[in-house]
Amino acid sequence: MLEFQYYLPVNLVFGRGKSDIIGEKAAALGKRALLVTGGSSTKRSGLLNKIEVLLQENGVSFCLFDKVTPNPSIITIYEGAALAASEACDVIIGVGGGSSIDAAKGIAFQTVNGGDINDFIFGRKFSAKALPVIAIPTTCGTGSEGNGFAVMTNPETMDKKSLRSNAIVPACSIIDPLLMTTLPKSTLACVGFDALCHNMEGYLSSVAQPLTSIQALEGIRLSAQSLGKVYDDPSDLDSWEQLCLASTLGGMVINTAGVTAPHGMEHPASGLKDLVHGKGLAALTPVIIEESILGAPEKFAVISKLLGGNNEKDCVQKIKELLHRINLVTTLGEQGITQEDVDWMAKNCLKVSAAGINNHPVVFSLDDIKKIYRKAI
Amino acid sequence: MLEFQYYLPVNLVFGRGKSDIIGEKAAALGKRALLVTGGSSTKRSGLLNKIEVLLQENGVSFCLFDKVTPNPSIITIYEGAALAASEACDVIIGVGGGSSIDAAKGIAFQTVNGGDINDFIFGRKFSAKALPVIAIPTTCGTGSEGNGFAVMTNPETMDKKSLRSNAIVPACSIIDPLLMTTLPKSTLACVGFDALCHNMEGYLSSVAQPLTSIQALEGIRLSAQSLGKVYDDPSDLDSWEQLCLASTLGGMVINTAGVTAPHGMEHPASGLKDLVHGKGLAALTPVIIEESILGAPEKFAVISKLLGGNNEKDCVQKIKELLHRINLVTTLGEQGITQEDVDWMAKNCLKVSAAGINNHPVVFSLDDIKKIYRKAI
Repeated sequence: MLEFQYYLPVNLVFGRGKSDIIGEKAAALGKRALLVTGGSSTKRSGLLNKIEVLLQENGVSFCLFDKVTPNPSIITIYEGAALAASEACDVIIGVGGGSSIDAAKGIAFQTVNGGDINDFIFGRKFSAKALPVIAIPTTCGTGSEGNGFAVMTNPETMDKKSLRSNAIVPACSIIDPLLMTTLPKSTLACVGFDALCHNMEGYLSSVAQPLTSIQALEGIRLSAQSLGKVYDDPSDLDSWEQLCLASTLGGMVINTAGVTAPHGMEHPASGLKDLVHGKGLAALTPVIIEESILGAPEKFAVISKLLGGNNEKDCVQKIKELLHRINLVTTLGEQGITQEDVDWMAKNCLKVSAAGINNHPVVFSLDDIKKIYRKAI
Repeated sequence: MLEFQYYLPVNLVFGRGKSDIIGEKAAALGKRALLVTGGSSTKRSGLLNKIEVLLQENGVSFCLFDKVTPNPSIITIYEGAALAASEACDVIIGVGGGSSIDAAKGIAFQTVNGGDINDFIFGRKFSAKALPVIAIPTTCGTGSEGNGFAVMTNPETMDKKSLRSNAIVPACSIIDPLLMTTLPKSTLACVGFDALCHNMEGYLSSVAQPLTSIQALEGIRLSAQSLGKVYDDPSDLDSWEQLCLASTLGGMVINTAGVTAPHGMEHPASGLKDLVHGKGLAALTPVIIEESILGAPEKFAVISKLLGGNNEKDCVQKIKELLHRINLVTTLGEQGITQEDVDWMAKNCLKVSAAGINNHPVVFSLDDIKKIYRKAI
């Protein structure tokens, strides 16, 4: 019996060079923008400067908040929201990787709602209001431009968990593949694998539904087809387009279908030890899938075929081959996680990732989770 | 090179029995509803009465506008809008087939914007405002619950053309397959074929884009699989679900990808002679596709395979077989169209359906269009 609800008011503008229309898009949404970005890459590339000029040309004033770091902290969100409020910003523009866009969303939400953002993250409070957000991704991984999630870490508890609200679905997302082509190979590998994981996990999720599954399958197909190609040849723009679209699709998919165990188990690790998210996923995903095939053999067969395999039995092997091709074979141990961290991570996983664990084709117990962490170290 | 914009804020609630939550959904959107429906079937089935009770139980008052006829006229829209205004309605609920839902959308738009609605239909004026619409389809064909289109006919000019605005994308669409199961077989055949056409045309359209194409292919697959089954066995609820979903997908697809020649050429015919839309499509589609294969052989091969065929060469045959199975083999002549109507229809087609004709894999000239009409008579 088929039952679902679907609401995802994304507003996507996709194409080479489309970041040139940021000025008019911002002018349609506000008069004073808070530009949210990380410390350096958007400056170095000239993108930030270009955006500032385009905003001015379109009569949108702005102030800059460039303090976003990877795995953004709730403290950063509070700081940005205070600035947005004191500067009377009416639109928030996130430019950069997933961290910048998630921070922009968190700031857009916090500016309007105030109080302890953890109340909203853990579902004790609810709000449908936020400032409008414009997302301009410069990486093709999180898909944050395609959903109403903003992942942030609480430095007091090390909880890495997402704020989820339709209010922070970007009012406009400009996906410009030309902004991605200068990504360092190591970053590309991490974000591209993240995109693949979103699509695989959304497809595997027990709360998947027809609209998310067709997007997820297209996302798996596109990322499987393009990730290795752009890794080898960054001048292959057609493949960049495919990977960017796969990333946005992955973001859209998880908004409704959620993530499953790989993301669910990675968050405690990167919450605790500030891992690079894609590397954490690379260490965990093959181990987790090995323990999951029996829970949904047909779905793993479909995934495997899209990765070039034959059936569910070679799915893990195909994922390992892709990781090998993009030089992303790694373990949690290599990233600083030790056997002593396992108990905390496993407990934290059931705290911050209860939904993801529940959506997985095999619902792991606390002991299963510990066993997988140990194996991945 | 891939470029697209995508924005379709549908809010779908899908599942057997879901129409029972109309009260709470309406209460979230307004205090006084205009209930828009046709003359009889929603009364006979008891659905209208059920909805009235649920609205009352949830503190939503309402007044009834039950004057919608097939191929709704602009006059009906004006009349409904006048009632909505005088009764101070703040939410419009469309219950019934595509005509009722399209009328509800038109009324929601006209109530707020006033003036000559043709200005908006023909793009001389623009508005992003309308009252919120709730759509409860009782047929699975138009997919109106999935888009921002409202087709209406101007009785002065016989122009049958859609108002298109994101403002009339329903704020909530409740797709309850249990509401469809009592459709007369002849109606089912017409609406089900309409749903298939939306998906085929959206897939064939030159302005198709990745998100619409994956939805369209799924819509073709689902309708091809389910239409014959529910026609044979109305108790097959799983197939009803598939057909309902295909219908909603078709509506979503055409919002962005548009329709092509079959819908483009059917509208002049049903604008002029008040045809049953699905019958008009049944007469025209095989003839049009025969003349179109060479424009997109790969796409017609994909469609053919989803219909059980082998390649583009048997696509028309597969469509004819489906029409035969659901007793919908017909000609325009059988529906009252004569050779004398051809010149007017062809000229009107280029007036009201310019976009659809342009999106088609083969862009037909006025003479081509006349030839096809003649063949379909």
